[in-house]
Amino acid sequence: MMNPIRLGVLGSTGSIGQQTLDVARRHPDKISVIALAAGENVGLLQKQKAEFNPRFVSCSSKNLVCGNSVCLPLEEMAIHPDVDIVVVAVPGGAGLKPALAAARAGKIIALANKECLVAAGEMLLDEAVNNGAGIRPVDSEHSAIWQCLVGETTKPEKLILTASGGPFRDFSLERIESVTPGQALAHPSWKMGKKVTIDSATLMNKGLEVIEAHRLYGIPYERIEVVIHPQSIVHSMVEFADGAVKAQLSPPDMRLPIQYALSYPERWSNTDLPRADWPKIGRLDFSAPDLSRFPCLKLAIEAGKRGSTFPAVLAAADEEAVNLFLDNRIKFGDIARLVGKTLEEHNPEGSTSLESIAAAETWARRRVSELARSL
Amino acid sequence: MMNPIRLGVLGSTGSIGQQTLDVARRHPDKISVIALAAGENVGLLQKQKAEFNPRFVSCSSKNLVCGNSVCLPLEEMAIHPDVDIVVVAVPGGAGLKPALAAARAGKIIALANKECLVAAGEMLLDEAVNNGAGIRPVDSEHSAIWQCLVGETTKPEKLILTASGGPFRDFSLERIESVTPGQALAHPSWKMGKKVTIDSATLMNKGLEVIEAHRLYGIPYERIEVVIHPQSIVHSMVEFADGAVKAQLSPPDMRLPIQYALSYPERWSNTDLPRADWPKIGRLDFSAPDLSRFPCLKLAIEAGKRGSTFPAVLAAADEEAVNLFLDNRIKFGDIARLVGKTLEEHNPEGSTSLESIAAAETWARRRVSELARSL
Repeated sequence: MMNPIRLGVLGSTGSIGQQTLDVARRHPDKISVIALAAGENVGLLQKQKAEFNPRFVSCSSKNLVCGNSVCLPLEEMAIHPDVDIVVVAVPGGAGLKPALAAARAGKIIALANKECLVAAGEMLLDEAVNNGAGIRPVDSEHSAIWQCLVGETTKPEKLILTASGGPFRDFSLERIESVTPGQALAHPSWKMGKKVTIDSATLMNKGLEVIEAHRLYGIPYERIEVVIHPQSIVHSMVEFADGAVKAQLSPPDMRLPIQYALSYPERWSNTDLPRADWPKIGRLDFSAPDLSRFPCLKLAIEAGKRGSTFPAVLAAADEEAVNLFLDNRIKFGDIARLVGKTLEEHNPEGSTSLESIAAAETWARRRVSELARSL
Repeated sequence: MMNPIRLGVLGSTGSIGQQTLDVARRHPDKISVIALAAGENVGLLQKQKAEFNPRFVSCSSKNLVCGNSVCLPLEEMAIHPDVDIVVVAVPGGAGLKPALAAARAGKIIALANKECLVAAGEMLLDEAVNNGAGIRPVDSEHSAIWQCLVGETTKPEKLILTASGGPFRDFSLERIESVTPGQALAHPSWKMGKKVTIDSATLMNKGLEVIEAHRLYGIPYERIEVVIHPQSIVHSMVEFADGAVKAQLSPPDMRLPIQYALSYPERWSNTDLPRADWPKIGRLDFSAPDLSRFPCLKLAIEAGKRGSTFPAVLAAADEEAVNLFLDNRIKFGDIARLVGKTLEEHNPEGSTSLESIAAAETWARRRVSELARSL
C-alpha cells in the first residue's frame, strides 16, 4: 500500500478549502491532512483542526489556539518538506506568495487561486518549470482540459471553455445594468464563493479563465473559444489537429476537479460524487457569448493579449469593483465600466516583476474607488 | 523523418476502404498503400491500383489484371512481413480469417469488421494478446472510447455508447413494422454501407457494438449503457470511478476514426475533416432507447450475455434477415422476429471453436431463410 499523500490546505475555511477537506474525509487511507491555513474564520479552522489534527496550522487572526499543532506562517507551510501536495485556495492576491514559494520548492501545487495565474502566471510557471514543481488546476474548466489532454502526444489545436452564462444569461442589457447583489449571488449551477459568483454573472470569471488557460496550456488567445453552456455539464473541451474534440463532463461538483488534482494520474472511487444520468439530463445547449451584454469577457481577453501588467490590473480592478458592488456602492453594470476605464488608463512599466505587479494592482484598486466616487 | 506506414487495406472498395484511401491520399508522406484487396468490384479496384500502385493486390473476382502488382490471397496479404498496419474492412464473416491470421502474425489491425469481434471476439483477442498484435477499433463509437481511455490508468466504471436512433427513431411500433428498404437506407447522419445502415435502423448495429465494446474493453454488460443521441456528435463516452465522464465529439465523418487508428498515439493534421462549430450545433440531445420498438438491441445484449455461439448466431441471422429485407422478401419488423426466433432455437455446442462458430452461423442463416418462407 502507498503512503497517504501529506496534504497542506491553504485557505481551508473557504469554499474550495472545505470541499478539499470533504474529499480528504472520504479518503482517509489516501490523504493525510498535515497542514491547514485560514484567514479570519478562526471558529471553523478550530473545528477543522479538531477533526484532522494537522501538524501545522496558520491563521491571519491572532485568536488561533495552536494546541498540539505547530503554528507556521503561510509561506513556510507551503514549502515544508513534509507537505507532498499543497492546495492553494487562498483567495485573491494573497495566494500569490505561497504559490510562488511552493513552486520554488518544487512542490505539487493544486491551484485554485485564479489571480496567481492571471497576474503573475508567467513568473509562476517559470518557477514551476525551473524547480520541477507541478501545477495542477483545480478549476473545473482547466481540470477538464487537463483530463482531455492526458495521454495525448500532439499539442491541441483549440481549447473550448464552457461558461454557464450566469444568472443573467437571458437578461437584456438594460435589465443587467441594475441587478442586485442578491440576484447575482444566486448562481444557477455551481456552489462557490461570493467573488467568483459575481464574476460568473459578469463573465469576468470566464475571461480570467481564458487568461489562465492561455498560460497553463500555451495556446494563443485566437485559439481559445468561449461557449455558453447553461447546464454546466460539459466542463470544457479540447480540439485536436484531426478535428477530434474531447470533453470532460459531469454534474457540477467542485469536489471532482479537487479530487483529480490529488489522485492524478489515478482516479479514486468516490460515490459521494454525482453521476450523470444522460436520459434525465436530456439536452446540452451551446451558444456564442454576447460580448455587448457581457463586456467583462472582452476586457479580459484584451488584457490577456496585451500582457505585461494588464492582466494584474484587470484582476485587481475587478476585485475592487466587485467589492463595491457587493457593498451596494455601485451598480452591476458599473463593474465592467470601472474595470474598462482603469485598463484604458493603465501605463505598464517596462518589465514585469513581483514589484511592478503589486504596484499596478495597488494603483488599479485605488483608481477603481476613485472612479466609483465620481460615478 | 519517420518511414511511412506500409498499409494493407482489405476491403478497399467498400465504404470504409474508400475512406481509408481518402485518408492515405491526404497523407502521402505518412502512409504508403502497399496492399489492396477487394471482393467483386474489379473496376474500382483497378482504379485504386492505378492510383496507389500497391505491391500486392487481391480480388475475389477472376477478372483482376495484376499488372505490376503481385496477386496474393487475402490471408497472405494480411500477414505479409512488409505490411505494418492492416485495415480489415472486409464485410461479414469473410473478415474473420484474415483478421485471425493478422492477429497470429502480431500485426497492428485497424478493425472495421463488426462480425469478427461479435462472433469470435474472445478467440481474436486471445490471439492478439498472445502474439503481440494490436487491435485498433475503426468504428466511431469504439474509437471514441479508445480516445477517452488514452492516458487513463484506472479501468473505467461504465461505457456509454451513443446511437443516432436511426431514421425511425420517432416512428410508432406500427409504422416501423413495414418501412421500406428505401426509407431504411436514408440514414440521417452517417455515410455507410447498406448492411450497416439497415442495422442502424433496427438498432442491431448498436447491439453488435455493445458486444464489441464488452470484448474490447472487458466491461460487463451491466455497465455498458446505450443512449440515443440523434445528432451523432458525441461518438461515445466513458465514466470513471470518480464520476468524471470523458466524451469524444466531432461532426460525423468515418475518416476521423480511420485516421486515428493509423496515426495513434499521434494525431495528424487533416483539414479535410470537419470541425465542430458549437454555437451552430446548438444542442445535443440524449434519451433512453425504446426496446419495445427496437427489439434487436435487446436481442443483441441478451445474446452477448449468453456468450458461446449466441453472438455468432445473432450476427449471421441478422445478416441473412437484412438481405431478405433488402430483397423485399420480408418486412422490416420481421428482421427482429426472425433473429429472435433463431436465437431461441439455438443449441450451442459445448466448446467454442472456429468450426463450431462456422457451423452455428451456417445453421442460423439457413434457419432464417426457412423461417422467412413460412412467415
